[in-house]
Amino acid sequence: MKFRTVALIGKHDSPAVAEALRALLQHLRSHYGDQLTVWVKAGNAAAIGEPELAANHETLVKADVAIVLGGDGTLLSAARRLAAHDVPLVGINQGRLGFMTDIARTDMLGAIDRLLAGEFIPDSRMLFDAEVWRQGERVFQTVALNDVVVNKGDLGRLIEMEVRVNGEFLYVLRADGMIVATPTGSTAYALSANGPILHPAVPGIALVPLCPHALTHRPITISDDSCVELVLITPHDAHVHFDGQSHFDALAGDTIRVCRSAHVVTLLHPPGYSYFAMLREKLHWSAIPRR
Amino acid sequence: MKFRTVALIGKHDSPAVAEALRALLQHLRSHYGDQLTVWVKAGNAAAIGEPELAANHETLVKADVAIVLGGDGTLLSAARRLAAHDVPLVGINQGRLGFMTDIARTDMLGAIDRLLAGEFIPDSRMLFDAEVWRQGERVFQTVALNDVVVNKGDLGRLIEMEVRVNGEFLYVLRADGMIVATPTGSTAYALSANGPILHPAVPGIALVPLCPHALTHRPITISDDSCVELVLITPHDAHVHFDGQSHFDALAGDTIRVCRSAHVVTLLHPPGYSYFAMLREKLHWSAIPRR
Amino acid sequence: MKFRTVALIGKHDSPAVAEALRALLQHLRSHYGDQLTVWVKAGNAAAIGEPELAANHETLVKADVAIVLGGDGTLLSAARRLAAHDVPLVGINQGRLGFMTDIARTDMLGAIDRLLAGEFIPDSRMLFDAEVWRQGERVFQTVALNDVVVNKGDLGRLIEMEVRVNGEFLYVLRADGMIVATPTGSTAYALSANGPILHPAVPGIALVPLCPHALTHRPITISDDSCVELVLITPHDAHVHFDGQSHFDALAGDTIRVCRSAHVVTLLHPPGYSYFAMLREKLHWSAIPRR
Amino acid sequence: MKFRTVALIGKHDSPAVAEALRALLQHLRSHYGDQLTVWVKAGNAAAIGEPELAANHETLVKADVAIVLGGDGTLLSAARRLAAHDVPLVGINQGRLGFMTDIARTDMLGAIDRLLAGEFIPDSRMLFDAEVWRQGERVFQTVALNDVVVNKGDLGRLIEMEVRVNGEFLYVLRADGMIVATPTGSTAYALSANGPILHPAVPGIALVPLCPHALTHRPITISDDSCVELVLITPHDAHVHFDGQSHFDALAGDTIRVCRSAHVVTLLHPPGYSYFAMLREKLHWSAIPRR
Repeated sequence: MKFRTVALIGKHDSPAVAEALRALLQHLRSHYGDQLTVWVKAGNAAAIGEPELAANHETLVKADVAIVLGGDGTLLSAARRLAAHDVPLVGINQGRLGFMTDIARTDMLGAIDRLLAGEFIPDSRMLFDAEVWRQGERVFQTVALNDVVVNKGDLGRLIEMEVRVNGEFLYVLRADGMIVATPTGSTAYALSANGPILHPAVPGIALVPLCPHALTHRPITISDDSCVELVLITPHDAHVHFDGQSHFDALAGDTIRVCRSAHVVTLLHPPGYSYFAMLREKLHWSAIPRR
Repeated sequence: MKFRTVALIGKHDSPAVAEALRALLQHLRSHYGDQLTVWVKAGNAAAIGEPELAANHETLVKADVAIVLGGDGTLLSAARRLAAHDVPLVGINQGRLGFMTDIARTDMLGAIDRLLAGEFIPDSRMLFDAEVWRQGERVFQTVALNDVVVNKGDLGRLIEMEVRVNGEFLYVLRADGMIVATPTGSTAYALSANGPILHPAVPGIALVPLCPHALTHRPITISDDSCVELVLITPHDAHVHFDGQSHFDALAGDTIRVCRSAHVVTLLHPPGYSYFAMLREKLHWSAIPRR
Repeated sequence: MKFRTVALIGKHDSPAVAEALRALLQHLRSHYGDQLTVWVKAGNAAAIGEPELAANHETLVKADVAIVLGGDGTLLSAARRLAAHDVPLVGINQGRLGFMTDIARTDMLGAIDRLLAGEFIPDSRMLFDAEVWRQGERVFQTVALNDVVVNKGDLGRLIEMEVRVNGEFLYVLRADGMIVATPTGSTAYALSANGPILHPAVPGIALVPLCPHALTHRPITISDDSCVELVLITPHDAHVHFDGQSHFDALAGDTIRVCRSAHVVTLLHPPGYSYFAMLREKLHWSAIPRR
Repeated sequence: MKFRTVALIGKHDSPAVAEALRALLQHLRSHYGDQLTVWVKAGNAAAIGEPELAANHETLVKADVAIVLGGDGTLLSAARRLAAHDVPLVGINQGRLGFMTDIARTDMLGAIDRLLAGEFIPDSRMLFDAEVWRQGERVFQTVALNDVVVNKGDLGRLIEMEVRVNGEFLYVLRADGMIVATPTGSTAYALSANGPILHPAVPGIALVPLCPHALTHRPITISDDSCVELVLITPHDAHVHFDGQSHFDALAGDTIRVCRSAHVVTLLHPPGYSYFAMLREKLHWSAIPRR
């Protein structure tokens, strides 16, 4: 068997997730016994009354696979934490399937059995390394799987930034902000901002302005080996959001730098997975001609 | 002569505006003398060294006409302050002409002479009364000539609100926010958010969602005798901006209520003014076929 | 009883509609007898084997109300034919409810009884008079309830037209074409072309360019007392479509003129009808917050 | 010297182009003499009174470089004809610079000298092989540098097609049509249809629906190693346009198949060329902050 250690990570404060975790744990114990080491994220272990399985971050990152129970937000959070350690992820969703969490709770046990038997479709997703630079020093850094969003925060007026690609000047943007999105992020916030959908196999980065002052500032997709720099023009401070999960308060003059990470996030999908089928389902695209 | 009292209002901290104010003042003194009473907004009077002409708000609102020197932002600010007193406004722009400030600095003296001779085109613009209600009490109120914007502020995630029109439920919006715009505001922030342009003669109110989660939440224009209510759904707090010039921190459960005001703002344009010509100029529409 | 003569008009070549017509006819006969005169459109009368009820156009236009069975297309067609005679219309839909046909087949008999008892909500819709002028002569005219569309036909390249409003030049458009839409038409083809939704109570006309060459050519809504003229610039011929149901081949130099008609189309909705509820249903807007 | 044979190709029926061709020809003769063989496209050779230089297609395709005088349309046409023979192209523009024709007439002679001295920036552009299949037989084929557009022609109503990517079903589209665009084409017609800008270095294909009936049919970019198939659903015939320069009348049931060509089009830009600078110029993006 390929996977010898499994990390279980669930949405916090969700009784339904706790119930599913317990069911999954019992299934793994009774069917795989000693063949499989199971670690449970500390907070989840407490919630399901199995404190002895609690694993901290240093342990979880050594797992062969992480099974995540929750929605796309929970998977996103786990992916960001495990990204530097190349732990593949499987997403199980309690409710309506997500863009990334594509195993329904009702199919969980069978799907995990097939996964452990080696039946899955690996799917590599590009990840961003994001940094904020101030007067020659890096003052913040993190990773992002969906997007880096620079926006005006609550300031009520547009902000101004210089956009550079691989050191070359692109334009000065006057807007509510800018979304820099991976293909994975292209179906998240960027889609609401009129951004283009990028299939995960397209090695591109989408630059999607938020409410740009000039009507000709259309979204543009650049090659994923490009580094994007957003330089805040004085006197404009801004907020920077990473996957909508962490943020940084940037100051006028700061540079937000976004490049493809050397790491990727690997999602493991059940056999039969189709990105297009997922899009059809999520975007309510008709499968058959309507009469 | 129709106008006997004139209020002069200028952009603050602008040496160019101070110079123009001085030139205008000297012209009015030498050509109209005692026929015309001139009041200067207190801050501007100090800046041009004519403290004896300084007029406070209570005086300015009694003027027969207000001449505003600055850009659209300065005019907007003056219009909001004078709205309840039905003082018509004339806008003189130092730089590139605005959507509302349509007299160039270089044409100022001639344009003002024609204005005082009764040559102008009056243009009534709809104004909003905007209120915030909390547990049965009105906790804020103001007017808006462009728009009322409810947004998530710096909270980084979408907000949720119930939208009601004349008490009837329209929909629940999950978005970065909502713009409620007058025809005047339809060419301001709403245009950046993909809203429709409304000619000032259309008695309509534009509802323009900001980055809506659902792709089918298209802008909708309703009749201007409608009152719009936006009810913040728990736990979503939000910021409310009025013409981008004042704002209020609303709490979950609050209702933002926007209706047409009983007052209008009257802009006085120079002879020959054309709304379409202004749009062509501002939006770079080609006047003639390109070959 | 208010209605003494009823015209029945159905979609052609539809066995389901023929069945519904028969059921409705039998119901009207057995419940209203001589109190009600029923006319059936000639083609439909033949289809349901009641040739003696067949009425030609001259008769149908004298009806007190027209009951239309089919979809929005069938209602549109009937409305255009009856427009000049002010016959109100009721729409019964076999399948999924339409924007205008809002009585389900399954509710038909009860809904018609309530209608004949005077329980209905009248809803006046603006109608266009559309004309094509060539060298000083009117060469075509018709009415449109949804839209007048001028497009390049199969010519493969953009066309060029001068757009005038009330005789005033607006701009030169280089595009695939232009949609001139009523509020009723704003949720039809214009919506696919990124046009704004106009509530039927807004007295406006939407000008929605089709794939404009210049990115700043955004849709604009003008007052419904405006007349729009589209002048085809040489050498551009174009096709003109009226409600997608009739069309005219226009030549370079022709002027397509669109004004509000003196007539309106009156739709009769069942009690409880809500335009917003219909929009929510058709556009899949969420009625309640999703968690 | 790298280039020994040069093909000159100009826009037809343009006196300005004929004049420029003559000037260029004289310059090449006087400065390069026998070192350089110059062929002139037959139609152009006649126009400039140099019939002995006239070269037919079989000769032109052997040139080391083609210098094209005209606009983007002329370059597009030349590129499509030379594509299978890998002749690099240089574009000289009489009027406003184009997206691809980036040498101004006034800079022509100096720019060509630098080109012939080996100073240029090569820029490979992806090309489509496009085919139409009917009942198992290929009935049409051509190449396209910008786009393949399937549209309803003059039929006045939407068409219906099944969209497949690499044999996998994507969705059924009900729309005016579909644009399949290369990165080069992303700034052409697709941009007017709200498509995303793709930098030429992005190996992607943009699928941009034209006025889709469903509002969720957003543009999607797929990997350029994908083949797209558009299957016309009965009873919908359609027109297919290739770069807006050739077209084919497709019938219901036909499949339009678009794949990346094994060939590329190589544009030779002058030193200092920048794709971003060209975009800024063409889309009127501000280079510096406006105050």
